[in-house]
Amino acid sequence: MKSLLLILLIALNGLAHGACLTRGTGDMGIIVERADGSVLVVDTSAHKVLFRVEGLGDLSHASAVFSRDERYAYVFGRDGGLSKIDILCGTLDKRVIQGGNSIGGAISQDGKLIAVSNYVPGGVKVFSAADLSLIADIPATATAKGKGSKTVGLVDTSGQRFVFALYDTGEIWILDMKQPDKPALTKFTNIGRLPYDGLITPDGRYYISGLFGEDGLALLDLWHPEKRIRRILDHYGKGKKQLPVYKMPHLEGWAVAGNQTFLPAVGHHEVLVVNTSDWKESGRIAVHGQPIFVIARPDGRQLWVNFAFPDNDTIQVIDSETLKIIKTLKPGKGTLHMEFTPRGEEVWISVRDKDEIQIYDTENLTLKTRFKATKPSGIFFTNRAHQTGL
Amino acid sequence: MKSLLLILLIALNGLAHGACLTRGTGDMGIIVERADGSVLVVDTSAHKVLFRVEGLGDLSHASAVFSRDERYAYVFGRDGGLSKIDILCGTLDKRVIQGGNSIGGAISQDGKLIAVSNYVPGGVKVFSAADLSLIADIPATATAKGKGSKTVGLVDTSGQRFVFALYDTGEIWILDMKQPDKPALTKFTNIGRLPYDGLITPDGRYYISGLFGEDGLALLDLWHPEKRIRRILDHYGKGKKQLPVYKMPHLEGWAVAGNQTFLPAVGHHEVLVVNTSDWKESGRIAVHGQPIFVIARPDGRQLWVNFAFPDNDTIQVIDSETLKIIKTLKPGKGTLHMEFTPRGEEVWISVRDKDEIQIYDTENLTLKTRFKATKPSGIFFTNRAHQTGL
Repeated sequence: MKSLLLILLIALNGLAHGACLTRGTGDMGIIVERADGSVLVVDTSAHKVLFRVEGLGDLSHASAVFSRDERYAYVFGRDGGLSKIDILCGTLDKRVIQGGNSIGGAISQDGKLIAVSNYVPGGVKVFSAADLSLIADIPATATAKGKGSKTVGLVDTSGQRFVFALYDTGEIWILDMKQPDKPALTKFTNIGRLPYDGLITPDGRYYISGLFGEDGLALLDLWHPEKRIRRILDHYGKGKKQLPVYKMPHLEGWAVAGNQTFLPAVGHHEVLVVNTSDWKESGRIAVHGQPIFVIARPDGRQLWVNFAFPDNDTIQVIDSETLKIIKTLKPGKGTLHMEFTPRGEEVWISVRDKDEIQIYDTENLTLKTRFKATKPSGIFFTNRAHQTGL
Repeated sequence: MKSLLLILLIALNGLAHGACLTRGTGDMGIIVERADGSVLVVDTSAHKVLFRVEGLGDLSHASAVFSRDERYAYVFGRDGGLSKIDILCGTLDKRVIQGGNSIGGAISQDGKLIAVSNYVPGGVKVFSAADLSLIADIPATATAKGKGSKTVGLVDTSGQRFVFALYDTGEIWILDMKQPDKPALTKFTNIGRLPYDGLITPDGRYYISGLFGEDGLALLDLWHPEKRIRRILDHYGKGKKQLPVYKMPHLEGWAVAGNQTFLPAVGHHEVLVVNTSDWKESGRIAVHGQPIFVIARPDGRQLWVNFAFPDNDTIQVIDSETLKIIKTLKPGKGTLHMEFTPRGEEVWISVRDKDEIQIYDTENLTLKTRFKATKPSGIFFTNRAHQTGL
């Protein structure tokens, strides 16, 4: 009897430890399986799936950030769910429904606060990264219909600040959380019609809102908020017929290379090139379709672009120096998301309709390997933990 | 008897697992204790020492890089020792004596290769990151005395390449390790007298050698090696008396903010400001002493500078926009090294003669906390794993 107990206890002890991995987390990441409400935890060195974590709700358009120690992923679901995943144990550590319809989130500079922006009921909520308890609730400006404005383009920057835009009321707000019990807001109104997404430059200095209601973007210099909002690239679509927009482009992927920033043009088959020293247009690149993501390889030498329906089977690679398209790839229908490995030697691409992840070598632009994932969309690697605005 | 065995076995099992930590590695780092040949493994969230790892030999001027998964630190000792430390277990995983007198190293883009540059016998050796077995031995050009040139300023960049300078013979070499069994060298000669250190811009594009033998620096555009070497900041000390140089400045800490790069002037109490669009001098900042490290806070808004003896008790903080000194700190004698936390909210400073690490808040520039370390010098955090040239 005692022998049996002995074996049992040792086995249990082994299991308890064995369930979690003892390993570095710098080469890990997650892949969102949108249809199943699950995420895959992956090893980017071994090209291997380590865990599948289920029960995350509606993950269409889901995004994620990582804790400062790169152990936990915070997943922002479309259904307002905020989930904390332990990537070393492959478990759902905690899940709260924080709003009705969520559109992304961010993590504070010190890693202690998670902010989530909501379509419904609008506004931003701030949670403790440790236990997801509510720390601050920032309602949005009410629209004429009495509802809170949709809140979009939420990013984090230095000084425990978050920046976001109010879609319906055309505003940009800075939320300063240095004193968590006294959230401080700086509001910029009349920034332009229908800001639909935002990006922040890698240094955390410039915040840019794309405007769906007009040709042009709104720029805020966070080192000098007293200079207020500046309109840039005004009327970039002037004289051209705008195409029907099937899917809004994303701005949150950085595409800053040297002193140039690359942005998707809404409703046009073009990538806009902007000089970051004067924020004027310095060029345009004709591309295969309406660009969704325009992202730069970490060294800035290449830009990778995917497209809206019906061109969402294609990726184009642009040389950031010559502005020429150097490669057109056809990963397959539903090519939704791209993520570079931290030092850029590979890019991982989710191909929804093929139920697979394709991994490309960014030096020779060829397919290196692929593996199965169920209706994959967003891919997020842990090195985002160390970066501002990602 | 069986009960005793049971307890014993469970205890042993617990110990075996307990020796290593199951935790994320994104908020970890190491601190070199130069006099004792040891390193401290630290937790940057908790401000805590987790382990002390001993037996690393002569660690004066030691530097370190991290594996792609952020689990292993590779420490380059002055005595030619290359040590692989497991920071989750606090153990010395492997140690080889690879040369007679070493001056730093780098890790390849894919994380599989470790390169070390040597004063004696000169040249670069490349090792497997997995087991430290020798993969390539690249001897330096022989000097008139028949010995290999001292080899310095070794950095990694994209495409599995390493770049370094030959001090005695005035050369810069690119080592391409895409085919590990066929190392390919590109050599640039007559680059200027006595290149003493190198830096690579954060995007991995520009390599700059400081020249001890003359006023000026050598610049190589790695996107366009066919353009060969360009001399920049020629005669920056012209008409000024050079002071005796007690300690060579370091270049390997990045100081790139917007389109400006900041460099320590050799033998002068000045920081040089260079415009990265034309690589011309755009300003100078008079500082407290001869600068050693000039490093930018990750968002580029501040530069932190320490100094050579006899001013090595001081740190100055410069606003990168106004170029004004905004704070002079006196951490104490032997203020040797500074390391920013990944998102820049803190800077950790080693103060050798006080046997302590001081941690400053970079927003209000005040001391936050401190802890004991024995004769600390270099501080290296794991987020370096994700960056080029660090």
